[in-house]
Amino acid sequence: MSLLVVGSVAYDSVETPFGKCEKMLGGSASHFSISASFFTDVSIVGVVGGDFEDAAVFEKYGIGTRDLERIEDGKTFRWGGRYEYDLNVAHTLFTDLNVFADFQPKLSDESKRSRLLFLGNIQPDLQRGVREQMPDVELVALDTMNLWIEHTRESLLKTISVVDVVIINDAEARQLTEIPNIIKAARKILSWGPRALIIKRGEYGAALFTPDNYFAIPAYPLESVFDPTGAGDTFAGGFMGYLSSQDRLDEDAMRRAMIFGSVMASFNVEEFGTERIRRLTPGEINDRFHAFKRMTHFDEIPFVARTTS
Amino acid sequence: MSLLVVGSVAYDSVETPFGKCEKMLGGSASHFSISASFFTDVSIVGVVGGDFEDAAVFEKYGIGTRDLERIEDGKTFRWGGRYEYDLNVAHTLFTDLNVFADFQPKLSDESKRSRLLFLGNIQPDLQRGVREQMPDVELVALDTMNLWIEHTRESLLKTISVVDVVIINDAEARQLTEIPNIIKAARKILSWGPRALIIKRGEYGAALFTPDNYFAIPAYPLESVFDPTGAGDTFAGGFMGYLSSQDRLDEDAMRRAMIFGSVMASFNVEEFGTERIRRLTPGEINDRFHAFKRMTHFDEIPFVARTTS
Repeated sequence: MSLLVVGSVAYDSVETPFGKCEKMLGGSASHFSISASFFTDVSIVGVVGGDFEDAAVFEKYGIGTRDLERIEDGKTFRWGGRYEYDLNVAHTLFTDLNVFADFQPKLSDESKRSRLLFLGNIQPDLQRGVREQMPDVELVALDTMNLWIEHTRESLLKTISVVDVVIINDAEARQLTEIPNIIKAARKILSWGPRALIIKRGEYGAALFTPDNYFAIPAYPLESVFDPTGAGDTFAGGFMGYLSSQDRLDEDAMRRAMIFGSVMASFNVEEFGTERIRRLTPGEINDRFHAFKRMTHFDEIPFVARTTS
Repeated sequence: MSLLVVGSVAYDSVETPFGKCEKMLGGSASHFSISASFFTDVSIVGVVGGDFEDAAVFEKYGIGTRDLERIEDGKTFRWGGRYEYDLNVAHTLFTDLNVFADFQPKLSDESKRSRLLFLGNIQPDLQRGVREQMPDVELVALDTMNLWIEHTRESLLKTISVVDVVIINDAEARQLTEIPNIIKAARKILSWGPRALIIKRGEYGAALFTPDNYFAIPAYPLESVFDPTGAGDTFAGGFMGYLSSQDRLDEDAMRRAMIFGSVMASFNVEEFGTERIRRLTPGEINDRFHAFKRMTHFDEIPFVARTTS
């Protein structure tokens, strides 16, 4: 029961129509690991600067930081973004990569023995480098983004061919395959090697594609979304964290993991940054898991054909 | 077990990137009634011109046409549209209302005794006029469109307050309420009187809102959509047709009806106009109904909170 995540640890400054928040803990590895920590033992591979003050947060959630490198004379990655009323679109105000610009993931021997691996959204050569150091890993999932699809496409395709699960959104799947129909696009991505593909659809939920099956779930219905930053990584953290707690990593487990991922993401967007997730209880997670069942259940009673008179 | 639909009967000319088709049977009442006919006894209230040649189609499906008025010296409603590669958007090429311009629904006594009523997308005063002639109807559903929301808003709100189910798409719900968040918009619409609201989401499926519950389903995954014309009315026909075949019109029945509606719509878009639906068998409908169960099922096993070491 061990999960490793490679990704960014950042300080985010976010403005939404509902308020603003400066220098809050963010980055893919932060959102992912705090979410996953409810389910499993999770450790981070990442880098921070001498200004990083939130190691205690990771400690509180039992998150391993042996491979979270600290560069004393550098600064932590900073991102600033603004959301308008359409909270689906983030407008980047600034990106200061700082120590993250030269990030070279370094894995301790203990980390290399992790059972599951999540390759957060970083340069695909780096993702593949990490994956190659873990030949015995049981399941590897990958996230990516438009930047890598556009500029390092060949490397990304190589990396996709050596992972088990790809987790991206609709637009990324279309951009990656240049196929507008999402079902066809999904078949194409699976043909490159992964045994599962998750397409995130924001307010419309998420879908799981495997070579033989299709599984789709709605999003949890929220009357207000406060800050969507990190929702994708929080989803991935719930998904991988839950899988890591299971003995069998089969499709049934993945389906439940999709629900737990969606549950975690739905809490994440209710407040700034990681605030809501950091006050979450296991009971709240399971309550929302059961709500997903009520939201999607129907009785499987076929219809009886009308007898034509 | 009787269902009445008021709406248009038309001849459509449609161009898609995959081909074109002239003068095929269309209109809301046609798509609705052919879809519903697999489940129940359905009759049309509508009007056609002397050029109408497809009465035999309705007869074949046992669809009642006693209130389908024929104006010999007039022409049937004609619509022409084109779809680009984004099949979600129809570009209207022409709209010749013809006899439909002065349509005044006339209900026979037998029609007035129908158990269920569907008010297709026509002027809301006309919709309300029909509804008022059927004080004993058990369930009334309504469709509408941006034109009526924009130009006859007050009348539409009055009509909504006297129906049981509203069936519209995301954009229409937002336009109607001027609320961007769809969950809040749904609450608003339900506050006007209906006991259920269905939001159609195209390739993302559909959702059912009731005062106490939320139910959401994906769309059937199709690798190609050939002609989306009439998908909404075909959905409504499956939904209302299935309900009409049931004794109890409760939420459980509505949930199954949503699936049957989606099944019918998924077949509709596979070919031009009503072509695919007209070759459909009850077995094919039930096969796809079962596929929806497989696509949405997960085991309801809550997670066991990690014991912090």
